[in-house]
Amino acid sequence: MTTTTNAADPSATTDIFARRESEARSYCRGFPVTFVKARGARLFDSEGRGYIDFLAGCSSLNYGHNDPDMKRALVDHITGDGVAHGLDMHTDAKAKFLETFERLILKPRGMDHRVQFTGPTGANAVEAAMKLARKVTGRRNIISFTNGFHGVTAGALSCTGNSHHRGGAGSGPLCGTSRMPFDKAFGDDIDTLHQIEVMLDNPSSGIDAPAAFLLEVVQGEGGLNAASMEWVQGIEKLARKHGALLIVDDIQAGVGRTGGFFSFDKMGINPDLVPMAKSLSGMGLPFACLLVRPKHDIWTPAEHNGTFRGNNHAFVTATVALEKFWSDDSFATDVAEKALLLERRLQRIAKIVPGGRLKGRGMMRGVDVGSGELASEICGECFRNGLIIETSGAHGEVVKVLAPLTIDTALFREGLDIVEAAAAKIVARETEAAEMAAA
Amino acid sequence: MTTTTNAADPSATTDIFARRESEARSYCRGFPVTFVKARGARLFDSEGRGYIDFLAGCSSLNYGHNDPDMKRALVDHITGDGVAHGLDMHTDAKAKFLETFERLILKPRGMDHRVQFTGPTGANAVEAAMKLARKVTGRRNIISFTNGFHGVTAGALSCTGNSHHRGGAGSGPLCGTSRMPFDKAFGDDIDTLHQIEVMLDNPSSGIDAPAAFLLEVVQGEGGLNAASMEWVQGIEKLARKHGALLIVDDIQAGVGRTGGFFSFDKMGINPDLVPMAKSLSGMGLPFACLLVRPKHDIWTPAEHNGTFRGNNHAFVTATVALEKFWSDDSFATDVAEKALLLERRLQRIAKIVPGGRLKGRGMMRGVDVGSGELASEICGECFRNGLIIETSGAHGEVVKVLAPLTIDTALFREGLDIVEAAAAKIVARETEAAEMAAA
Amino acid sequence: MTTTTNAADPSATTDIFARRESEARSYCRGFPVTFVKARGARLFDSEGRGYIDFLAGCSSLNYGHNDPDMKRALVDHITGDGVAHGLDMHTDAKAKFLETFERLILKPRGMDHRVQFTGPTGANAVEAAMKLARKVTGRRNIISFTNGFHGVTAGALSCTGNSHHRGGAGSGPLCGTSRMPFDKAFGDDIDTLHQIEVMLDNPSSGIDAPAAFLLEVVQGEGGLNAASMEWVQGIEKLARKHGALLIVDDIQAGVGRTGGFFSFDKMGINPDLVPMAKSLSGMGLPFACLLVRPKHDIWTPAEHNGTFRGNNHAFVTATVALEKFWSDDSFATDVAEKALLLERRLQRIAKIVPGGRLKGRGMMRGVDVGSGELASEICGECFRNGLIIETSGAHGEVVKVLAPLTIDTALFREGLDIVEAAAAKIVARETEAAEMAAA
Amino acid sequence: MTTTTNAADPSATTDIFARRESEARSYCRGFPVTFVKARGARLFDSEGRGYIDFLAGCSSLNYGHNDPDMKRALVDHITGDGVAHGLDMHTDAKAKFLETFERLILKPRGMDHRVQFTGPTGANAVEAAMKLARKVTGRRNIISFTNGFHGVTAGALSCTGNSHHRGGAGSGPLCGTSRMPFDKAFGDDIDTLHQIEVMLDNPSSGIDAPAAFLLEVVQGEGGLNAASMEWVQGIEKLARKHGALLIVDDIQAGVGRTGGFFSFDKMGINPDLVPMAKSLSGMGLPFACLLVRPKHDIWTPAEHNGTFRGNNHAFVTATVALEKFWSDDSFATDVAEKALLLERRLQRIAKIVPGGRLKGRGMMRGVDVGSGELASEICGECFRNGLIIETSGAHGEVVKVLAPLTIDTALFREGLDIVEAAAAKIVARETEAAEMAAA
Repeated sequence: MTTTTNAADPSATTDIFARRESEARSYCRGFPVTFVKARGARLFDSEGRGYIDFLAGCSSLNYGHNDPDMKRALVDHITGDGVAHGLDMHTDAKAKFLETFERLILKPRGMDHRVQFTGPTGANAVEAAMKLARKVTGRRNIISFTNGFHGVTAGALSCTGNSHHRGGAGSGPLCGTSRMPFDKAFGDDIDTLHQIEVMLDNPSSGIDAPAAFLLEVVQGEGGLNAASMEWVQGIEKLARKHGALLIVDDIQAGVGRTGGFFSFDKMGINPDLVPMAKSLSGMGLPFACLLVRPKHDIWTPAEHNGTFRGNNHAFVTATVALEKFWSDDSFATDVAEKALLLERRLQRIAKIVPGGRLKGRGMMRGVDVGSGELASEICGECFRNGLIIETSGAHGEVVKVLAPLTIDTALFREGLDIVEAAAAKIVARETEAAEMAAA
Repeated sequence: MTTTTNAADPSATTDIFARRESEARSYCRGFPVTFVKARGARLFDSEGRGYIDFLAGCSSLNYGHNDPDMKRALVDHITGDGVAHGLDMHTDAKAKFLETFERLILKPRGMDHRVQFTGPTGANAVEAAMKLARKVTGRRNIISFTNGFHGVTAGALSCTGNSHHRGGAGSGPLCGTSRMPFDKAFGDDIDTLHQIEVMLDNPSSGIDAPAAFLLEVVQGEGGLNAASMEWVQGIEKLARKHGALLIVDDIQAGVGRTGGFFSFDKMGINPDLVPMAKSLSGMGLPFACLLVRPKHDIWTPAEHNGTFRGNNHAFVTATVALEKFWSDDSFATDVAEKALLLERRLQRIAKIVPGGRLKGRGMMRGVDVGSGELASEICGECFRNGLIIETSGAHGEVVKVLAPLTIDTALFREGLDIVEAAAAKIVARETEAAEMAAA
Repeated sequence: MTTTTNAADPSATTDIFARRESEARSYCRGFPVTFVKARGARLFDSEGRGYIDFLAGCSSLNYGHNDPDMKRALVDHITGDGVAHGLDMHTDAKAKFLETFERLILKPRGMDHRVQFTGPTGANAVEAAMKLARKVTGRRNIISFTNGFHGVTAGALSCTGNSHHRGGAGSGPLCGTSRMPFDKAFGDDIDTLHQIEVMLDNPSSGIDAPAAFLLEVVQGEGGLNAASMEWVQGIEKLARKHGALLIVDDIQAGVGRTGGFFSFDKMGINPDLVPMAKSLSGMGLPFACLLVRPKHDIWTPAEHNGTFRGNNHAFVTATVALEKFWSDDSFATDVAEKALLLERRLQRIAKIVPGGRLKGRGMMRGVDVGSGELASEICGECFRNGLIIETSGAHGEVVKVLAPLTIDTALFREGLDIVEAAAAKIVARETEAAEMAAA
Repeated sequence: MTTTTNAADPSATTDIFARRESEARSYCRGFPVTFVKARGARLFDSEGRGYIDFLAGCSSLNYGHNDPDMKRALVDHITGDGVAHGLDMHTDAKAKFLETFERLILKPRGMDHRVQFTGPTGANAVEAAMKLARKVTGRRNIISFTNGFHGVTAGALSCTGNSHHRGGAGSGPLCGTSRMPFDKAFGDDIDTLHQIEVMLDNPSSGIDAPAAFLLEVVQGEGGLNAASMEWVQGIEKLARKHGALLIVDDIQAGVGRTGGFFSFDKMGINPDLVPMAKSLSGMGLPFACLLVRPKHDIWTPAEHNGTFRGNNHAFVTATVALEKFWSDDSFATDVAEKALLLERRLQRIAKIVPGGRLKGRGMMRGVDVGSGELASEICGECFRNGLIIETSGAHGEVVKVLAPLTIDTALFREGLDIVEAAAAKIVARETEAAEMAAA
């Protein structure tokens, strides 16, 4: 693969970012190059260097970059003057997406949910879910969980655990929510589900009657914590018992990332509300929706609105993605195989790192290496060797693999080799340094 | 222009929306057809019927639909595997946008602002602004204004006036804000600026020291209320005096809509924070940013983050838009001429309607027809005659013209003829009905 | 007048306060002596010096100190082992108070209100009122007014205007309230009632549907601002129109202070809820209640509770006070005469001070002297001359006379002479200083 | 002891309460008589019937009713025109109280705390503590505990667990607090201290940095849950580690109730803030204060104020109480003996009730009888037999003994006999009913 030619002069490029982009910028600090091209599981920088992408837009690119079928459909749509921006008016593109989503995703799962096209960010879908749960129940309290991440707008942020993000709200108000321990938050021996039940059954616990439980089945930003089926079912049962709605935030864990289309496939639950975003468009375009069980769909027109709700370009690519990957089981089968490979390889890496622990589920996996510093050094070493990968967890202690689900096995192995080598090298260096310090 | 051929069967199409789209859907109720194509100032439905677009995606399509130069650049970008989704990593597309925005927009105005790419919705940029103002000042109170609209996520919603949208929050908490009367909120004779000053100077007024004032220079959703330069300058002065930031929400009024690129051009103010969205991408793609004066840019990396911050497709089209329309004064001159035409025509229409009043500024104009019912009937009649137009204002009492700024004059007149005829017809019918009732 | 003999060594006394009393202490700083005795309108310090009391416990001692009839009844109650603390159990003392209050106060005014004995502070009664209004209406927003003072616990404080007190909440949340301008808050020419109506009628004003309006008819701490009857009636009408309750906080202005028993007597309104405290016990004992119209009395048992609700000592003295002062019109007539005297004398004083303005109503009167510094110096001079008097207003700019209503006319004149002399002296000194500075 | 003669006609008495007292009234429903006299551990109703008082004003009457020495001092004070109401001005009574409190309570314990006289309710002292903790730390979050009770004004209520009381806030905002499990909230096997530590150490737990921990060492209303010394010390350590203040609410458990003057005596902790009320006056008079470590005493004058802060009658009786009961160890020794007797007797009663469990510590003891219905029936049977006693706990499942600490042993036994007989009778009846139902 060769150098791109349309790259801006990198020095000038760097200049403009420093000069004019806000200090809020983040990933570009860890990967200080300018990307100009992307295809499948690879990114290319302005100097023509290729990188294997184990970040995949934080799970927004589950089908990889620039899928040729999606590209073709989108280019046709644009070329043919298809509607790009239509507010929430009916368009043929929206109709096709809804029909396809109904046929391939909802119906086979017996889900009667309606689709609300919210503003095209996951946070916006979460905000809509929170508002709707409060409207439906007439209650205010949303129960969210330790290490949960749901976005950084005021409502979503009130349910997000991360203090760095919460701190960004200044002295702003984050209220109307309660925090409960996630599955295994206190270790394997403590049954947090039971504790939550005790809290809710106790009329003097100080936990107001909940409007909803808001959870991720596998917590992405929070450290790849995967809840057990029993725990998730227990939360659903608790929600039903206490008249609360169950909101499963499937923004990062959905769209095939954990194996099925939804992270809760085959878990025997039926969430009332499901915010979706990230990989939903298939091509990384801004797109989000909220799945709503019809009995809860009590919105009045435009009560929750937004200029970019219903991104028509995304309807086009999302429809292609559904047809291409979810018409039969072959994609899921393929993902399951890769997930097995990933599990085995990460177990091996976990053994390299003293105290290393495998985290996550499906293709949403990582290794807890014990500290954010170590994880960060491993990711840095990976980047130097042409692999893009980041950390997650409360302390950034998890090296997180979010490869495109469509990555071919050879490249996947190549990327995992880089991770393993990086872990080995960094651990060896640390050990040596420790021994020298002890000597 | 003729009928499109790729339309889905309209009956089935309608079916899927009713069956699977949330009750929150809105515009599609007023315009119950399925759109399949759009170019310039025209939309086409699945039966091939064309409509003049005086809605322009609520000012998201200031340059019209599917501008050929933007289309070409976007298709080239896609075809060449340009990055579609890159989180906030550096890309050549982002660099070009920043450079162009700096050169054509910021520098000529002496603005030293940095650009924060927030989640791609206006509400997200507003939430970022509110958080940053609170972080910078260590205060909580954001002062917003009657009839202001800033979005419907919890933070933005706490500053939005509309009770319909606020009601959507259920029993959720909307707090940390104070509400003040906008310019002329109590009529032309009352100096609301003075009243706000009295409130803020009074240590017993109960208005906590403000972190920021958040305002639109021309209120779009609130009824096309245009603040005077004196009033806006007075608010800035008040903000400075009380150690608060000035946030000008230029989401609907910006990008040429009122004549200059910013709605506050030539007003002699220098807002600390400017949320932008809607027409920023040029082509209606989801895209938003917050302009931040460098001294306030105290974000830590990713403190305010979001998966779709920095939409690369939008970088591409926005750059084309800036180059095409803002390299020199010709576009602004053209818009000013159309604005004059619009003013004259709407004054004529205002005279047709008993008590009709001209509202707004530039190409963000409308007629207050006195009641939401009347406004709604006029818009309905327009739609039957091939024109898409909507109402605004607290009671929906304003017939609002948001034509693409690029509309050619002949078509613009054609559309205004439809509005005038509709107003005349509906008013005549109402008068007749009133006379019959009186007889 | 003779020296008291049971005084502690004053130097040691002062020591203990500095050593062990919190910095929150306040009045003792302006009146740095130790008081040991009090009778009628006089206080005596540990050195035997007497002071005329124009503070009257901030209107808690409308009948003066240690009324002999109340003393006798209380001593009999204590001596006879009458219940001192009975939670909210029935006692004979409570029954007698209720019967007397019903017979002498409620029935003659046609008021069907019930009495809720809240915790024995005005703030507690206000908190109960706010909670009940929210419970009754299912709404959250309480509208309070500029310069209103309702107490400093979190709920009451959210309705209190004073920034000094609000600041005491640290970064705590004060929310769920809206602030409106009081009568004449913007001067005599501006009809704030109309503005409030415009705000409430405007569904996009951002003011949520109110649970209640909470107001003082005469604002005590806020600067002796007296609302007109028209304005108060207008607020009641507005409350009815918008389905909100009317709460009149009569804690400082009630119990005869403005002439009638209630400050709203003869105003033609019927408040839904009336928090009372301060002079209600008659003898300065901690005692508060909330008057509640029966239709709003939807409390469940103990839903709002408190250990000291229903102070039986206060029941005893309050009953005596009601019988002694409110059995016929003679007390009210006497108060009216003193109020006239007060008005004339304060008008004279107002003329002494450049820009001086008479404030207040009835025996709740003062002079706005233009600045807190000046007012403070006048009060200091009064104290040096044996008169206890304090300031009020947002800037402490009002010299406030709150003499016991029972003060005999000669002593009242003596006190007013002291105020007048102090005003004259301080103003002369200021004028002289200004002239010297100008020379 | 014989019938009182000054009773009002009971039928009329009852009438007035029904007619004019709010539905919020509570204890009078369980004890539907009118009390007219009280002495020591006995109350007498209007028909002359005597009752043993195992309620003691919810621990406000730890020294019994109408202690003769306190009566005498108070009557002398009143007769001699001692100051009754003095706002927060210096008085001899206040000086004496402070000196005595310093000498007998603070100094012997090495406590350097200052005394803030808040409004005379426990809730007011709690509100002051919450505000001060937020002011000192600049943080908002107050961590409170399951089953905690701290009062029902908005701030205090946000820390109170009981849903009945919280529900009384209507749709009002209770925010800025987090809830944690109290010691043994999940049973004896679960170390909640560890869990709280895990939550606080986890930067993604969603628990904001705390301004303070607010706890009762023995929870009174919450069911007589006594925290272990280890747990309390652990919370203090956690508070220190996280820069938070430790607030021990000693309103119900203090003033000798658990043995020492403070409930935390000999626990090896040094709370930053200690709200006190209830028995502090000694005679049941409204009186509260906040103990504040000097370094946190950053209040500005009157920042937290209140009309009845510093009740001079209470200063007088409280001083007598301190001198009489806390000059040496004899009272504490006596209380310890009674506590032992109580423990033995309640253990016996606990055995009578299937599943019965002893709760509490010192003279703050009770039996968890498993259900609120059963507890309520036992208390009802006690009342019919001349004993006043109430329930506590989240479900009202604890029969709670709060006898005056000064009760003589014979009367104490008599009262306990009544409880035991009532428990036996009700349990037998229940068992019989169950057997008949089964038959």
